[in-house]
Amino acid sequence: MMHKRLINSLLAITFFFGTIGYSSATEKTEQWGVHEIILPGAATGNPYQEVTLKAEFKQGSRRFTVPGFYDGEGVYKIRFSPDSLGTWQYVTQSNLAELSGQSGSLECTKPTGNNHGPVRIVNTYYIEYADGSPFYSIGTTAYQWTSVKQSIQEQTVQTLAGSPFNKIRMCVFPKSYKHGNDTEPWQYPFASQNDFTRPNYDFFQNFDKRVHQLLELGIQADVILFHPYDKWGYAAMGKENNAKYVRYMIARLSAYRNVWWSLANEWDVPRIKEAIDWEQIGTILHNEDPHQRLRGIHNWYGSEDHFYDHSRPWITHISTQTHQFYNAVKWRNRYKKPLLFDEMRYEGDVTSGWGNMSSEDMASFFWMAGLSGGYPTHGDTYRNNSDHETEVRWWAKGGLLVGRSPLRIAFFKFFMETLPVKEMSPSIEDNGNQKNLNNNVYTLSKEGEIYVSYVADAEVEIKLELTGNRLYQFTVIDTWNMKMSSRNDVQPGEFRYKTRNKYEAVYLRSKHH
Amino acid sequence: MMHKRLINSLLAITFFFGTIGYSSATEKTEQWGVHEIILPGAATGNPYQEVTLKAEFKQGSRRFTVPGFYDGEGVYKIRFSPDSLGTWQYVTQSNLAELSGQSGSLECTKPTGNNHGPVRIVNTYYIEYADGSPFYSIGTTAYQWTSVKQSIQEQTVQTLAGSPFNKIRMCVFPKSYKHGNDTEPWQYPFASQNDFTRPNYDFFQNFDKRVHQLLELGIQADVILFHPYDKWGYAAMGKENNAKYVRYMIARLSAYRNVWWSLANEWDVPRIKEAIDWEQIGTILHNEDPHQRLRGIHNWYGSEDHFYDHSRPWITHISTQTHQFYNAVKWRNRYKKPLLFDEMRYEGDVTSGWGNMSSEDMASFFWMAGLSGGYPTHGDTYRNNSDHETEVRWWAKGGLLVGRSPLRIAFFKFFMETLPVKEMSPSIEDNGNQKNLNNNVYTLSKEGEIYVSYVADAEVEIKLELTGNRLYQFTVIDTWNMKMSSRNDVQPGEFRYKTRNKYEAVYLRSKHH
Repeated sequence: MMHKRLINSLLAITFFFGTIGYSSATEKTEQWGVHEIILPGAATGNPYQEVTLKAEFKQGSRRFTVPGFYDGEGVYKIRFSPDSLGTWQYVTQSNLAELSGQSGSLECTKPTGNNHGPVRIVNTYYIEYADGSPFYSIGTTAYQWTSVKQSIQEQTVQTLAGSPFNKIRMCVFPKSYKHGNDTEPWQYPFASQNDFTRPNYDFFQNFDKRVHQLLELGIQADVILFHPYDKWGYAAMGKENNAKYVRYMIARLSAYRNVWWSLANEWDVPRIKEAIDWEQIGTILHNEDPHQRLRGIHNWYGSEDHFYDHSRPWITHISTQTHQFYNAVKWRNRYKKPLLFDEMRYEGDVTSGWGNMSSEDMASFFWMAGLSGGYPTHGDTYRNNSDHETEVRWWAKGGLLVGRSPLRIAFFKFFMETLPVKEMSPSIEDNGNQKNLNNNVYTLSKEGEIYVSYVADAEVEIKLELTGNRLYQFTVIDTWNMKMSSRNDVQPGEFRYKTRNKYEAVYLRSKHH
Repeated sequence: MMHKRLINSLLAITFFFGTIGYSSATEKTEQWGVHEIILPGAATGNPYQEVTLKAEFKQGSRRFTVPGFYDGEGVYKIRFSPDSLGTWQYVTQSNLAELSGQSGSLECTKPTGNNHGPVRIVNTYYIEYADGSPFYSIGTTAYQWTSVKQSIQEQTVQTLAGSPFNKIRMCVFPKSYKHGNDTEPWQYPFASQNDFTRPNYDFFQNFDKRVHQLLELGIQADVILFHPYDKWGYAAMGKENNAKYVRYMIARLSAYRNVWWSLANEWDVPRIKEAIDWEQIGTILHNEDPHQRLRGIHNWYGSEDHFYDHSRPWITHISTQTHQFYNAVKWRNRYKKPLLFDEMRYEGDVTSGWGNMSSEDMASFFWMAGLSGGYPTHGDTYRNNSDHETEVRWWAKGGLLVGRSPLRIAFFKFFMETLPVKEMSPSIEDNGNQKNLNNNVYTLSKEGEIYVSYVADAEVEIKLELTGNRLYQFTVIDTWNMKMSSRNDVQPGEFRYKTRNKYEAVYLRSKHH
């Protein structure tokens, strides 16, 4: 064990990191993988409250302070995800002697398989992988899937693996609500249900495991830290417990490259609007997350005066509950951040108006949201289990997908992935009537090269000005039936097309040479 | 009522069909729709056995003899699907006076919506819709889905509506077997379970209804007339009952444009191989189906010596259980008929070797089968219901899809639908080892224009001779992750590419102008 006071210069650092020779061989972790340091320590008292632990990871002139956490049964962990290749060195610091001054190094190796790193913001409004690979966000929602019984959790992973979705909105805490949210969780997040000073480590280990499974499937976990649909007290733990919990979540989870932070599902529901200090939470995440995962805060009412102030510096992207797609350009321009339509309503059959959209309209919303320059999110409220069981509906507990939109969403995704989306800009023709979404024309284009326009209704005229002097290949897309029909090439200049059927898009691409 | 003896010349015919003025207004039925004539008649005795009924439908010089059937409770029906526009006239004939000599006409109107007609064979080896629209067959299998309880039947329709599948293999009779086939049917096809002289009309009405729902979803119903997995006697009814039943099925179902006839699931299982006279059944269908739906007969053992003689004139297409994709070209050349890989094994987790393939391999089989010039069929043996219920597995009872292949199959389908498949030819490089499917290279091409090659293994060289003198656009397809990566254009001539990962395809398309 080394005295910390020795460390005070480059010399000291060299000496300090030199101690790795005394420990085990350098471990290897691939870039953007999770490097986990496991440290045995005292289990006495309440380590969650009393023990401080962090590590400083260093490579060249870059240093990251990475929080550690207690994981029960005398085990402490520090998780770090290196973002560049080569050797990293670390040393720990703790108020518990046996955890402090532990040092070592890791060799960060090339990423393998489908590891393209975390996502990052590109061209102000879009998202791509850290290695520059394209990422087109196709979200779904299963709020409390990690709180339900294990067999359903397993089924959810299986379902996601066979789905088009690459992002899922999911709460840490269980949810109490109607429409399939009426059971107690498989375990409670805290000891004795609501001793907020003592985590239930099994609960959080399971949460980590599920996030890791999503990582392996290439699915972003949009982790919702707080929500109002609570009967156990997790929405009213108080500032101190909130801060402790958020810091614990950072320590446990932020090393997983697929994690996003969603401060709230519906921050403005009166019960939590003032009760939770959103600035406090946002600031902690902003200042203390060593991996700087994306941060959003999602509204309840679907109008912009219920948005949290998205110009706040700790907010990385606009996370909205709305289907006012016609405002997308305005919001993008106002906040200069990526726009995620994180709740657009649900396909399904519950009695609530927000949860009984047809599959056709759910799929249609994807085209509207996507061509408005945002990223869409799906939800399904159909019951997916049999009569003799507790009600399982995807939007709440996961399980199985029943609605017919996912196949069409897959088609939409395949199509969008053929476009240079990050170089494209939206424009919206609302045809003078914001109340009727279905006659709005949404166009995403790259001037002189590619124009894609969508309108849900038949008999609506799409008008475009095709720039440049090259011919355009012209394709009509039947988005519901997933058919693309080539038409005759069209000249540049004014283009007009009146839709024949519902759910049509037009796709114009200039011809080379 | 008119005396039939009066009808003997054009004059008589004119006079005869002139009687429509006395009956109700001409009914309208769209082209390839179902025109149903409902006739009340005596319910005494055993109409199934004793009453004969047919109608002659006529348009210009074309006449079709259409069988009618008894549907219980004193109701007789005749179903006809007109294949050309304009007026059709009909007159009935029966040994029951009140059913005979009924005449009328129908006006066949233009098809609407997604009605492209029945499928037909094109260019010897392929299938398209009657109106010339492309159809690429993507099958699945749920043998006894119409025999299980109604809630599962409803769920199956819902699942299919959200799936990529446009053909399903389905038995008329319930099935008794392991792996999710252990329940009694929701109703029995015959009175008292096995009084083969008296249908249970509810059972058959439900079957019609399900076929009609598939029609509306654009899904071909590959109706399996006989199978060996039987404990009720339906596989051993004897020649006379078999003939009666097959004629009844023709009368009830052939007017539905999505019906195909599959004489058997596994005709060569010893229990039914000799017990059923396949020539008798095939000949009845060939001679008496007024709508001439496709006819196939599916084998048990997966080797060609267990194929039924596919050169028989009543067989329209090769319906195989096999995954010997490397024999596809040989079989196509031998029989000069479309080749359907109607059972290639199943993704899932049952103990039987045929039913525990990975989702990756199931998806991979689609590429092999499709690029070998055949049409692939999916199956899923995973359990899809909860613990407290009777075992439900898609391959047997329908319900929900669990495996991860359908999304990849959707991607395969989207891709194949961008190709002029009916103008393309397969070639297969088996790399000297038929035992290892995964290093076979399957290529479907249109000389000088398009080449698509697939091999399941990494590190296998694909060699092509690209004809013509135009550059080719070159794309590598990661078929499992559904990503298409553009590469630099390649020159015509010899092309070589060694696959880097499993499940890769290459796609070369010559550039215009």
